[in-house]
Formats: sequence, structure tokens, C-alpha cells
Amino acid sequence: MNRLAVADVYRDAGFGRSVTRGQRPAILVVDFSYGFTDATYPTATDADGAIDATAKLLTCARRKGVPIAFTTISYEAAHIDSLPWLRKSVGLTALKSGSRLVEIDGRLQRDDREPIVVKLGASAFFGTNVPTLLASWRADTLIVTGATTSGCVRATVVDAVQSGYDVLVPEECVADRATAPHEANLFDIRQKYADVIPLSETLEYLESLEAREK
Amino acid sequence: MNRLAVADVYRDAGFGRSVTRGQRPAILVVDFSYGFTDATYPTATDADGAIDATAKLLTCARRKGVPIAFTTISYEAAHIDSLPWLRKSVGLTALKSGSRLVEIDGRLQRDDREPIVVKLGASAFFGTNVPTLLASWRADTLIVTGATTSGCVRATVVDAVQSGYDVLVPEECVADRATAPHEANLFDIRQKYADVIPLSETLEYLESLEAREK
Amino acid sequence: MNRLAVADVYRDAGFGRSVTRGQRPAILVVDFSYGFTDATYPTATDADGAIDATAKLLTCARRKGVPIAFTTISYEAAHIDSLPWLRKSVGLTALKSGSRLVEIDGRLQRDDREPIVVKLGASAFFGTNVPTLLASWRADTLIVTGATTSGCVRATVVDAVQSGYDVLVPEECVADRATAPHEANLFDIRQKYADVIPLSETLEYLESLEAREK
Amino acid sequence: MNRLAVADVYRDAGFGRSVTRGQRPAILVVDFSYGFTDATYPTATDADGAIDATAKLLTCARRKGVPIAFTTISYEAAHIDSLPWLRKSVGLTALKSGSRLVEIDGRLQRDDREPIVVKLGASAFFGTNVPTLLASWRADTLIVTGATTSGCVRATVVDAVQSGYDVLVPEECVADRATAPHEANLFDIRQKYADVIPLSETLEYLESLEAREK
Repeated sequence: MNRLAVADVYRDAGFGRSVTRGQRPAILVVDFSYGFTDATYPTATDADGAIDATAKLLTCARRKGVPIAFTTISYEAAHIDSLPWLRKSVGLTALKSGSRLVEIDGRLQRDDREPIVVKLGASAFFGTNVPTLLASWRADTLIVTGATTSGCVRATVVDAVQSGYDVLVPEECVADRATAPHEANLFDIRQKYADVIPLSETLEYLESLEAREK
Repeated sequence: MNRLAVADVYRDAGFGRSVTRGQRPAILVVDFSYGFTDATYPTATDADGAIDATAKLLTCARRKGVPIAFTTISYEAAHIDSLPWLRKSVGLTALKSGSRLVEIDGRLQRDDREPIVVKLGASAFFGTNVPTLLASWRADTLIVTGATTSGCVRATVVDAVQSGYDVLVPEECVADRATAPHEANLFDIRQKYADVIPLSETLEYLESLEAREK
Repeated sequence: MNRLAVADVYRDAGFGRSVTRGQRPAILVVDFSYGFTDATYPTATDADGAIDATAKLLTCARRKGVPIAFTTISYEAAHIDSLPWLRKSVGLTALKSGSRLVEIDGRLQRDDREPIVVKLGASAFFGTNVPTLLASWRADTLIVTGATTSGCVRATVVDAVQSGYDVLVPEECVADRATAPHEANLFDIRQKYADVIPLSETLEYLESLEAREK
Repeated sequence: MNRLAVADVYRDAGFGRSVTRGQRPAILVVDFSYGFTDATYPTATDADGAIDATAKLLTCARRKGVPIAFTTISYEAAHIDSLPWLRKSVGLTALKSGSRLVEIDGRLQRDDREPIVVKLGASAFFGTNVPTLLASWRADTLIVTGATTSGCVRATVVDAVQSGYDVLVPEECVADRATAPHEANLFDIRQKYADVIPLSETLEYLESLEAREK
């Protein structure tokens, strides 16, 4: 089946519609810790462009009072001893609590009032307080950025829409280790779970909102 | 980056290891309802081969006392009115409670003691009693079959390994609407979340277990 | 320690404050199925007063467009075979799928667009789509009624506030099998999790809202 | 209704049965941080006896290779700003990340390989990795100790049995701020969710198991 035919199949199945942009967005920055953004670590991606684009997004969001949360994967000895995911993806055991790899990349200029959510799995929603934060913030729309597109971003986007939120992915703000999985996952996300849109459109959306106090 | 180079990147990042096969597997059959298996519906895939392969797997599992659960997506009016996922993937609103589309495909010869789990989202674990069933069954390993590879199977596999289970995907037992997403998602699954193995190897594994009473 | 002293301890520990009444409440009616409301069943309570009070609440809510969900406990053979909760509370196995015991009490005049959520455990949030419904409804406040106060209502209230919602319990709208557990649990709820208020105050709150379309 | 009559009602409703003791227990120590165990803090209880009893239990568990996890409530500024639970139970905002109040009580001699789970709510299972830890440990039975009986212990026990585990509460190992709620909640727990048993019986159960490697 060629690419055109695939698009037809998905359109006939009723995928790929556009999502609503709500009045109360929140932003989740997934795993932009040094273990994923500093290319000297084997677990990392080339994320410089996505970090810059996310920094722009966050600057705008802070000005408008849009709440922001960061996730980081961070393992204790007890996790490394027992989690099946770390037997499959053993490289992730490098993400040790207290190490530089689990710190949020400084270029994002995280404010102390922006929570860091520690997660052990792929999705930012799984076994974390992200669902409670979003409900507490009365969020209706979630903007997801981070790394990797084919891993934790994908898993987070799926959970976000399952959880009842409209989801936006600014394309310049997500990064991956290799092009093919990056593109394949953006295809799935765009068809089934979220709108993949330019950063510029995301900024326009945030600018269109009334500023609110957090 | 060519395919070889991608494999190198993933190997260096520490992905793609093999998972443990435990003593107490369980089987999840994801969305093999007519809405996904009968090609007369626009939401469906060509799943005949995967249905046949899954039927073989289930026959073996029943003989060995391995517990089996089925999922189905099934919507009430209240869901169609309100869920953001159904605004993005509007075709899924065809999966109405009480319709033939939400019934498990008869070729799988479901037994009355094998639970059907209704889900509203992509993952079999999300907002369902699957986590409780697996804990109640004292399962250690999960075998996932069903449709679609790039949708509900992928989401279920990610949640299964995040939940603490070793996960196996018999390759002949999963189906999708198009080849490219099917293959791209098997690549991701194989690298990061589960072992994608032949049906024959899955059957050998089940045969190697002592039969147990459910 | 006498009752006054207990109140002092809780006040010093910083409990018992009042919760915010939001602009977008939703209502959860917990387990007002015949198995809990028809006193001919051993699992039931004397719920007539609480049913009447809840019916009044729902009439008002429907007029104002406040969304309503019902829960029911309903077991298949597979659950009865395996769930630890049903070994501890074996009487609940009477709540069989398809039986009258799992039907919502007709006096509540449920509308077809008001979802029924099947649950296997005590909390309406546990292993169900309630979290997704509340997020999809953009709810900020949850009003909980139902049975039993010391069982499923208590568990639901705890999960509701943990999930990020402000919670109200109209006192006339909850019922239990015996007075002592009913009162003890209302004490805990009032101190730590929700405002326990008169039905009249709940109705005034709903009346004060602008009517909305669901 | 007098106490005898209440017992009759519960027996007729089919509550109060005994739970299975499995081959793979795990232990959850709920909120035995200084904020709950050092009586100089207003949030604390008189937990000295329960700490001593829990220390005995943990010594035995470590010898037998039974896995142990600790929970602590610990808030960042972002949580204090936004969580509805902290508006109702404002005293808990004293449990600030990095303060002594959130450290596990030293008398329990926690080992570095025993995970500390940070939670924001009442239940150890809610928004945490406890479900994944228990599945990863292939646990079948959960022993719950800690504080307070009427708060986080109760909420944890309810979630444990809902999650598919058999649950034991050694009576000497749980503590509360006041006698009446302590007893009322032990009554509910004993009737509906777990076996409340003497520490001595819990120790005999652990001693009866074969030692295992963690």
C-alpha cells in the first residue's frame, strides 16, 4: 500500500480530525533532562533545536500564566533491581537519582514553582501525580513537548487524550534518536491522538488567551 | 540515517534486550471485535490471519489453564457526547454499545468464564479492571494479541511493561490497517517494550508450563 | 479522649476547612442499584430517605445542565473466581451482571444520556472511566451521593479529592447499613476530605449556577 | 442499633471473611515520617508503640527477603498552590519537601534498597509507582502498617484489596491521632477489606515462608 492509499484508509476509518483548543491549556515537558538532551550520554538525542523551540514556548506560557510541569525519569536501586522495563531497555538504568542525567536541562529555565514529576515508565501519566495536577489546574487542553517522540512523548500523548484532554504537539518541540521512528510516530499521533502543529501556531494560540494567575 | 545506523543508535542506547518468560502468563486479546475484524466496517482491518493465529494460541492456553481476557471498545451516548478522543478519531463512534461491532469475533470461541473488558481508550489498562485482573491472577507475563498494532496493541503493550509485567507479542497475532504503521510500531515495541516473537515460539513457551487450574 | 478533645486534636492538625464550590460541578451517584436499595436483599441498606433526597438533587441538576453519572457493582463469573475482595466480602458476589441487583433504582429516573459506570471495587474512580468522564466534562467540583457511607461513598470521596476535585456530600443523600459506621465515616469525611452539607445548601449552590448545555 | 445488631447486619450481608495468606507477601509502611511520628509536630500521632512493632516486623521481613516499601507525603510549592486536598486539610502543607517532617523515622532502619514512594494523597497507590512495584515483585499479599489508621492506612488498604491483593493489617503496627476514629476504621477494615491480626500472627506467617532473594 502506498502513502496515498494509507491516507485513504485512515480517512475512511474516520481518523485525523482536528481537536478543540480550550481556554485553559497546560504544558507538559517530557524528559528534557540531560540524560536525553546532552549528546555525550548514550541515552540522549540531538535535542538542541527542540530545546530552543520549547524554551520559546515556555517563555510565552509563563507570561500568560499557563501552568507548566516537567517530567524526568529517575531510578533508585530498588527500581533497577525489579522493573521489567529496565530488563528490556537496560540503557535507561543510567538515569540514576541524584545524577546529572535526571536534572532538567538548564536552557529551559525552570521556575521553582513549576513541578518536576518523577516517572519510572514511558508515559507522564503513568504512576504519577500528573492526572491530579491537571485536574487541580482545571486544564482542558494539553500541549506536549519533549523526548523522545517515539517513546515517552507518544506514550504521554496517548494517555492525555484517553484522560479526557485535547492535545497539541508543536512539531519543532519534540525530538528523537532517529528520523524514521520520529516520523512514524508523528504520523500515528496526528491521525489518532493529537494535532501536530507548528510552534508558531501554538504561540498564536497562547497569545490569544487572556493572561491568568496561576 | 539508514536502517543499520538506526539499529546502532538503539543498541548503544541500551534497547532491544530480551524479556523473561515467567511461570504465570496471561493473555490479553485486544479489540478483536467485529468492528475491527469484519472488513465490511470502515473501522476494521484485514485481521483474518491474526484471528486464526490467535485462535490457535487460545486453544493452547485453555488447555494449560492460562487465563485469558478480551477487550472491546464500546460507547454509550454519554461518551460520544463528551470524550475528546472521539472528536479526534470520530470514526470510532461507530462502536456503539449493543451493536455487532462491539461483540468479540466468534472465531475466537470465547468461553463464558473469560472476561470481556470494556474500554473507552486505546490501552487495555486505561480506566479498566485489567490491572486488578492481572494482579488477582498473580500473572507475571503478558501475551498481547489483537488490533490494531499501531493503536490499541501498542498502547496496551506500553502500559503492560510500565505496570511491571514482562510482555510478549506473537507477530502473527496482531493486525493493522496498513503495513507501514504496523511495521513501524513493531519496531518500537521490539526495541523498547516487549519481545515480538513467532507464534510457534509462543506455543512452545505455553507448552513448557505445567497446566494449572484457573 | 472525649469528643471535644478529638475535635481539638483535628483542629490543631489543620483539618476540617471548607472546600471551594466551583463553577462546573458534576454528580456521582454511587451504587444506588437495587442490591443496595431494596431491603429484601441482604446486601442492601434502608436507603429510602437517601433515594428521595438524591432524586430531588438530580431533578435540580438536570434542569441546570449539571452532568450526572451512576455507578453499579456488577460481577461476571470471571471476577467471582478471582478477586480477593470477593473472598473478604463474599456477600457482594450476589451482585451478578444481568440481575436486578445491579440495576439503578428506578426512583432516580436515570436518563439514557447519563452514563452508568460498572465498577468492581469500592471507589467509583478505581479501574473505571470516571476520571476520564470528569476531565472530559471539565468538572471542578464533585457532589457524591449513594451507598454505603462507610464503604463505596467513603472510598469515592477519598479518590475524588486525591484526584484534584473539591468534594461535597449532601448528608441526606448517603445511606448505610448501621448508624455507627455511617457517623464515624461522616466524621472522617468532614474532617479530611469533603464538606458534608445539608441537601438544601447543595440545591442553593446548584441554583446559583448559570444553566449550561451538557 | 447496638453493637451486636451491627455485627449481625454485617454477617448477613456477607462481610468479615478471612483472607488468604499468600507465598509472596510485601510490606508497605505508610507515612511513618517524622511529620506523623514526632509528637512535637501538630500533624503527628503518638506512634511510638506502632513504630516499635513495625521495626520488629521489618527485621523479620528483611531476614526472609520480603520486599518493603515506605511512603512519605512531601509537597513542593506547586502542590501547595493547587491541590484541593490541601485546602481541606491545610495542616498537611507543613509536610514540605526537604524538611525533616518528610524523612522516614530512623527507628525503622530503612535500607537503601527499600524504596521510598512520595505520595501527594491519602492512598499509597494513588498517583504512585506502588502498583508497578508490587507487580514487579510478583507480590500476592500486602501487609500494611503506618499512620494514620483513619486516613492513609485506611485509604491504602482499600486500594490494595481493590488492586487484587490479599491484605493484612498487624494491629499493633498502625497508629492514629485519636481512639474513636482508630477503632471505627479498624472495624470497617476488618469487616470489608483486610484481616486485622496481632503482630505475633504476622511474624509467624512470615517465619513460615521460605526465605527468598529479593
